[in-house]
Amino acid sequence: MRMVDIIEKKREGLELSENEIKFMIDGYTNNQIPDYQVSALLMAIYFKGMTNEEAAYLTKAMLYSGDIIDLSMIDGVKVDKHSTGGVGDKTTLVLGPLVASMGAKLAKLSGRGLGHTGGTLDKLESIEGFNISLSEEKFLKQVNEINIAVAGQTKKLVPADKLLYALRDVTATVPSIPLIASSIMSKKLASGADVISLDVKIGDGAFMKTIEDARELSKIMVSIGESLGKKVNAFITSMDQPLGFAVGNRLEVKEVIDTLEGHGPSDLEELCVEIAGYMVKDAKIVSTVEEGKKLALEHLNNGKALAKFYEFIEAQGGHIDDLDHFIQVDEVFEYKANKSGYIQSIKALNIGLASMKIGGGRETKDDHIDPSVGIVLNKKIGDYVEEGDVLARVFLNSELTDNVLNDLNTAFTITDDIQEKTPIIKEIIN
Amino acid sequence: MRMVDIIEKKREGLELSENEIKFMIDGYTNNQIPDYQVSALLMAIYFKGMTNEEAAYLTKAMLYSGDIIDLSMIDGVKVDKHSTGGVGDKTTLVLGPLVASMGAKLAKLSGRGLGHTGGTLDKLESIEGFNISLSEEKFLKQVNEINIAVAGQTKKLVPADKLLYALRDVTATVPSIPLIASSIMSKKLASGADVISLDVKIGDGAFMKTIEDARELSKIMVSIGESLGKKVNAFITSMDQPLGFAVGNRLEVKEVIDTLEGHGPSDLEELCVEIAGYMVKDAKIVSTVEEGKKLALEHLNNGKALAKFYEFIEAQGGHIDDLDHFIQVDEVFEYKANKSGYIQSIKALNIGLASMKIGGGRETKDDHIDPSVGIVLNKKIGDYVEEGDVLARVFLNSELTDNVLNDLNTAFTITDDIQEKTPIIKEIIN
Repeated sequence: MRMVDIIEKKREGLELSENEIKFMIDGYTNNQIPDYQVSALLMAIYFKGMTNEEAAYLTKAMLYSGDIIDLSMIDGVKVDKHSTGGVGDKTTLVLGPLVASMGAKLAKLSGRGLGHTGGTLDKLESIEGFNISLSEEKFLKQVNEINIAVAGQTKKLVPADKLLYALRDVTATVPSIPLIASSIMSKKLASGADVISLDVKIGDGAFMKTIEDARELSKIMVSIGESLGKKVNAFITSMDQPLGFAVGNRLEVKEVIDTLEGHGPSDLEELCVEIAGYMVKDAKIVSTVEEGKKLALEHLNNGKALAKFYEFIEAQGGHIDDLDHFIQVDEVFEYKANKSGYIQSIKALNIGLASMKIGGGRETKDDHIDPSVGIVLNKKIGDYVEEGDVLARVFLNSELTDNVLNDLNTAFTITDDIQEKTPIIKEIIN
Repeated sequence: MRMVDIIEKKREGLELSENEIKFMIDGYTNNQIPDYQVSALLMAIYFKGMTNEEAAYLTKAMLYSGDIIDLSMIDGVKVDKHSTGGVGDKTTLVLGPLVASMGAKLAKLSGRGLGHTGGTLDKLESIEGFNISLSEEKFLKQVNEINIAVAGQTKKLVPADKLLYALRDVTATVPSIPLIASSIMSKKLASGADVISLDVKIGDGAFMKTIEDARELSKIMVSIGESLGKKVNAFITSMDQPLGFAVGNRLEVKEVIDTLEGHGPSDLEELCVEIAGYMVKDAKIVSTVEEGKKLALEHLNNGKALAKFYEFIEAQGGHIDDLDHFIQVDEVFEYKANKSGYIQSIKALNIGLASMKIGGGRETKDDHIDPSVGIVLNKKIGDYVEEGDVLARVFLNSELTDNVLNDLNTAFTITDDIQEKTPIIKEIIN
């Protein structure tokens, strides 16, 4: 088998076989196939696409390039959740305790945030004492005991994906839907869960810009999961504006607690309840999604989800001694409307960038995060505001720069026309 | 400027600027841009093409990546000729002395053959004593004195093309017409001529398979020449069957002499006279192509072209003492028709491969060539043959293998229907 023939075959729009895809991934991982042949193939894939079968073969080949987490020690159905990344996206922190309180097992490996999107690990680590470095034994034991554990990745999962992603990044081949799908799915499958929920964000602040692309990505991912014996549900959700109100680590944790107490932002609650409904149904805890959603709402209102949250936090060494003093900042700047009207847009990208710039996120991997800073929206798209009304509160431990103010100015658009509130969940594909 | 942005721009089908193309070629030649980015760009170019302007910028950037031959010491208009490569293609050996005898200056750097196509240098070196290693001084002096010199390339011409071609070869990006055009033209322009004739072969034995591709390639090359101040004529010619009858080095030299004596194969003579007509017209030796063609025919019939051939050979140390003993082989195998009918095809590729396999060409760069062996066709497409008629004579210094016999069997197709003789020149683009 010669790599050049594989490139030519894809260039001509033909379907690659499982052997050809495995030959490429194995050869690349073992340094036997050079970067320049792989990048040419990636560009051919960009133009000619991949069938669902090819994407499944690619996922499988990448999956087996490294370690796979063995969750067989955990009793019951293991659920997992992945988001393509958004601003104010604290879904995992609500959903995890919620489904755990209902009996599902969430053994989650998570990542840090970079750029305008936050990361679950950063949010958890903003809690005093919270430890994300669990031994495999402790991780599995905790899930068996309290149904939930979230840890950083230590094992060498999917090295082929790391290699391929780094190459795609410098060869303008990132935005290929089958390549994105295989990358996400190989990582999710390596984490060992049986039931996987994918939150595919669309909009200005998201990786996918259109519903068509998100739908295509979702379908391929569901198909890949099916090929590899996993149940996958994809939720296409709006990132036209930040999710919920809070953006910034402790600010988001606070909002998570509000939501687990049953009085969170409606978009966040709706999303978590919907995903939870599917998860517990697929985990065979309930027999229909509707039943699952009903139970989820109950657990948000009867304190069970909140109790599970605190149990989870404590199990990993975290503690929030006084919620009233959890957020510690020097200044809260009130960003106000410069005219009256309806809010037409709150660009998630700009809110995310503003939060990052004041210390709430990382511009580069080595940046330090200030856990308390961030932005809390006071209004959402469709709300009517009077000139001078507070649109957002900026929690700061530094001077507010023009640069950040400019991000806020760019984020908000106010118009005279009534604006419809867009639903958080646009489509569910499974 | 970042290479990844250049790749993305081309991927989106946008036109690259001269600066961007120069940045890429300079960076690649200086090892500052890695192979894997260039190969991704090449694949994007394969899919999105290049405008004539982009191809001219690419040619120029490659041209200036190395040495350029300075022919200014030669008086008069310098002509050059390039063929995309064919089987039995001895055009340069006829055309060179022919136009030189008419007063044009041919200062030609030539190459060796590989695979099923022969090379001009190999044909010249099949002549006892012929020296292709000329100093620059001797090369220029010879052209000034006798109007013609053909030498091997010694200077570092177009290193960027060598790098790019090697990369294209292993990344399935060879068959991109603007890349082929830029590669050919950069090499031709580096050789310094004012008037360039391009013989673009099409058919089974050629690089270009269709008239459409050949036309596109020709147009881009003519346009590139124009952009860089050169007069370029492209001749789209048939490689449905070998050119002339002879394939193999000394066999071809013998046919060249026949042609220069005015009794060569009609297709070879027609092609040489046509190209010569354009060359001497553009070299301002005559005022119309027709006048040039008339003069060329005269020179084939009055011995002037042949005299120039011997003058050229002798100037470079070559001598053919006895033409009757020039071809020295152990055996001449007569390959005969197995049925009566009209010759429908004589696949040039198979004839070329058969000649290579018996020692007339090189399979790899290090292979040794036997100058005397080869194949001489006895018939051409459209001829009527009786069963048992000789179709070709195989000149051998080894046993005839089944493999070679199989190539011959594949090459010839005989049919009951009358076959039209196809013209050698299909189109002229300038």
